[in-house]
Amino acid sequence: MNYQNFFTGALDDLRDQGNYRVFADLERHCGSFPKATARGADVANVTIWCSNDYLGMGQHPSVLGAMHDALDRCGAGAGGTRNISGTTHDHVLLEAELADLHGKEAALLFTSGYVSNWAALGTLAGRIPDCVVLSDALNHASMIEGIRHSKAERMIWKHNDLEDLEAKLAALPLDRPKLIAFESVYSMDGDIAPIREICDLADKYNAMTYLDEVHAVGLYGPRGGGIAEREGLMDRLTVIEGTLGKAFGVMGGYIAASAALCDFIRSFASGFIFTTALPPAVAAGAAASIRHLKASRAERDLQKAKVTEVRARLEALGIPHVDNPSHIIPVMVGDPVKCKYISDVLLKEYGIYIQPINYPTVPKGTERLRITPSPVHTAEDIDHLVGALGQLWEYCQLARMPLAAQ
Amino acid sequence: MNYQNFFTGALDDLRDQGNYRVFADLERHCGSFPKATARGADVANVTIWCSNDYLGMGQHPSVLGAMHDALDRCGAGAGGTRNISGTTHDHVLLEAELADLHGKEAALLFTSGYVSNWAALGTLAGRIPDCVVLSDALNHASMIEGIRHSKAERMIWKHNDLEDLEAKLAALPLDRPKLIAFESVYSMDGDIAPIREICDLADKYNAMTYLDEVHAVGLYGPRGGGIAEREGLMDRLTVIEGTLGKAFGVMGGYIAASAALCDFIRSFASGFIFTTALPPAVAAGAAASIRHLKASRAERDLQKAKVTEVRARLEALGIPHVDNPSHIIPVMVGDPVKCKYISDVLLKEYGIYIQPINYPTVPKGTERLRITPSPVHTAEDIDHLVGALGQLWEYCQLARMPLAAQ
Ligand SMILES: Cc1ncc(COP(=O)(O)O)c(C=O)c1O
Ligand SMILES: Cc1ncc(COP(=O)(O)O)c(C=O)c1O
Repeated sequence: MNYQNFFTGALDDLRDQGNYRVFADLERHCGSFPKATARGADVANVTIWCSNDYLGMGQHPSVLGAMHDALDRCGAGAGGTRNISGTTHDHVLLEAELADLHGKEAALLFTSGYVSNWAALGTLAGRIPDCVVLSDALNHASMIEGIRHSKAERMIWKHNDLEDLEAKLAALPLDRPKLIAFESVYSMDGDIAPIREICDLADKYNAMTYLDEVHAVGLYGPRGGGIAEREGLMDRLTVIEGTLGKAFGVMGGYIAASAALCDFIRSFASGFIFTTALPPAVAAGAAASIRHLKASRAERDLQKAKVTEVRARLEALGIPHVDNPSHIIPVMVGDPVKCKYISDVLLKEYGIYIQPINYPTVPKGTERLRITPSPVHTAEDIDHLVGALGQLWEYCQLARMPLAAQ
Repeated sequence: MNYQNFFTGALDDLRDQGNYRVFADLERHCGSFPKATARGADVANVTIWCSNDYLGMGQHPSVLGAMHDALDRCGAGAGGTRNISGTTHDHVLLEAELADLHGKEAALLFTSGYVSNWAALGTLAGRIPDCVVLSDALNHASMIEGIRHSKAERMIWKHNDLEDLEAKLAALPLDRPKLIAFESVYSMDGDIAPIREICDLADKYNAMTYLDEVHAVGLYGPRGGGIAEREGLMDRLTVIEGTLGKAFGVMGGYIAASAALCDFIRSFASGFIFTTALPPAVAAGAAASIRHLKASRAERDLQKAKVTEVRARLEALGIPHVDNPSHIIPVMVGDPVKCKYISDVLLKEYGIYIQPINYPTVPKGTERLRITPSPVHTAEDIDHLVGALGQLWEYCQLARMPLAAQ
């Protein structure tokens, strides 16, 4: 066995398939997001159009102020796991802020959204005797890994398909423990789950519900509590999971649920217990961001307006994008090599950075440019983007035909 | 099935066993570590004796300066996964710093040491066809979960036992892919693995080696490269894994290895791909910490002196602690309820914070107080600690008999 040859061979295969990933080396310009310098490509002034800092909160003065202050108060890191000297008052305050955001008794922090899904789903489904997980077919990798980790029985229901979900629920004994795991906004297609109807089914069949609102928290609902808040459904969900690294602009993940459920995960989840806590400054920054977005809807309103405008302009040019009710605009390309090529040209010739989204993030054949307009994109930014895409589509003779949302 | 009753029942069981965990709510005082305010316990001035910020780098001016600067330059969060707009120049520089620290071609960052072990071991053992993992019996939870995640065959060898490891290696076909996974400094007992001899066995049986140096990086070796650097063995290890959250004082995890191996993990590891990157400020702070500790041995020397002194003073009083060649001083109690009681009294009556270490962090019956002296503990701090432990041991009539290291 020659290990080195094995690694290089696997990487060559990726290259042959057009799926080898090259990271753009960026220097974001704080205070003038979405502008950045792209180091590797050597482009000094780039406009980022694919960030998950959806509202530009990563440069908000309240967030930065809270982080500077916490650095001066508490230092750099937490210095330990939550149990062994790593719980600071900033963690406690942030958990209270999150519980309040979702109208739940408690919340529990993790180092990332990925870890929160992996650890919470793994622990719930793994520890509740004979639990079966009903998992939406398009759930995020972190949820899939958590469910797999639990070793519980897993049934995959067709994406957002209530009939299929009900058929699977009805086939199970009523008293068998069940957990329905799904997302609100699906990040690559931007479609939204029928949360109310799923909760109805959960009630009927005595199932718990686990909702990933990673791409919705901060963005939807009167206080940024997500789609479930907007629809008045937060109290019907057993667990709401979210991230602090996207609309809130910092880093970290969490669940919000009953006090007993959070305490249960806190007490048994390996991925919560055996890891250094988030830096106090990260916790303080996230708390400031949440507090701001609870009170201010200006960022959400402005984002919606920009999304609507970009959509309309693409529509007018006939550039194929998935129609959906969210803030995510997937422009479909359908080929990994073309997708990367367009992205390279956009970066080098237009100073527009949109990372190509290829397998394994999306299924092969559905490669795309995923555009995320934000309140900090200006009218000129939008003109420039739409103009560039129009020229490129012409130049590349890409079909101007909209792809159906899948 | 009543889910809520299930959760509260499981928590009651923990309480009955004395294993229910209460987190100390701390406010660390930046600039005067190891001092903090303990909020829950209402003690205004506490000395932390159980932090993994082993060298006090969490308050080092270079680290804080780099973080303040990066916040002002780049904002709060990375705004995306490493692939999708989340790679900043601070990540690139940190990875170069880490590769250099360990004398490897490349390094790869993760959101935590936990995730680095889970993702790297899971991907290596899971993707190399027919790989078998030889795992030390006392490996950390994150390594165990990673190996489990890989679904590869796993053989557990007796802790630090070369004979047992060799017997297991010899029983496998020479050309079957093998990965030996172990730690340098074991965090709860403080003993150190025979790295050279393990590398000899790896060469003999054509195995890869994966070394977790989480409790050694920054602390050992002329530039803080860990035990493998101290012993001149870094080039013999396939993968060196470490954390940025302990001696380096910030947060994050990494592997250092060949360029092809790092690129392989970068390209295939779910736990690397599908998660928001570390904040640029965290990366910048960690890089500053590593740079400082590469050049300065003052912190390491001072730490060693404090550890030696605390050990000698405990010895003189006959307070049972595990003898080991590292910076970790486990004072054995052997009962979860007593362990928590002593810890509570230390906090409330002496202003000394040492978290009780109970199951599942250590095996039942080996509950302990884990003391980690640092360069920022003063002579008075040590007097106060030793005095308090002496009084308590008398008061509680705990055996003054040393427990054998296990
Ligand atoms: C649906 C979904 N859940 C969870 C995560 C993970 O969150 P985080 O980036 O905080 O790890 C992501 C993306 O990163 C996601 O898209
Ligand atoms: C041996 C070992 N490996 C890995 C980790 C995880 O590192 P991190 O705290 O950065 O997640 C820890 C402790 O937290 C550890 O003790």
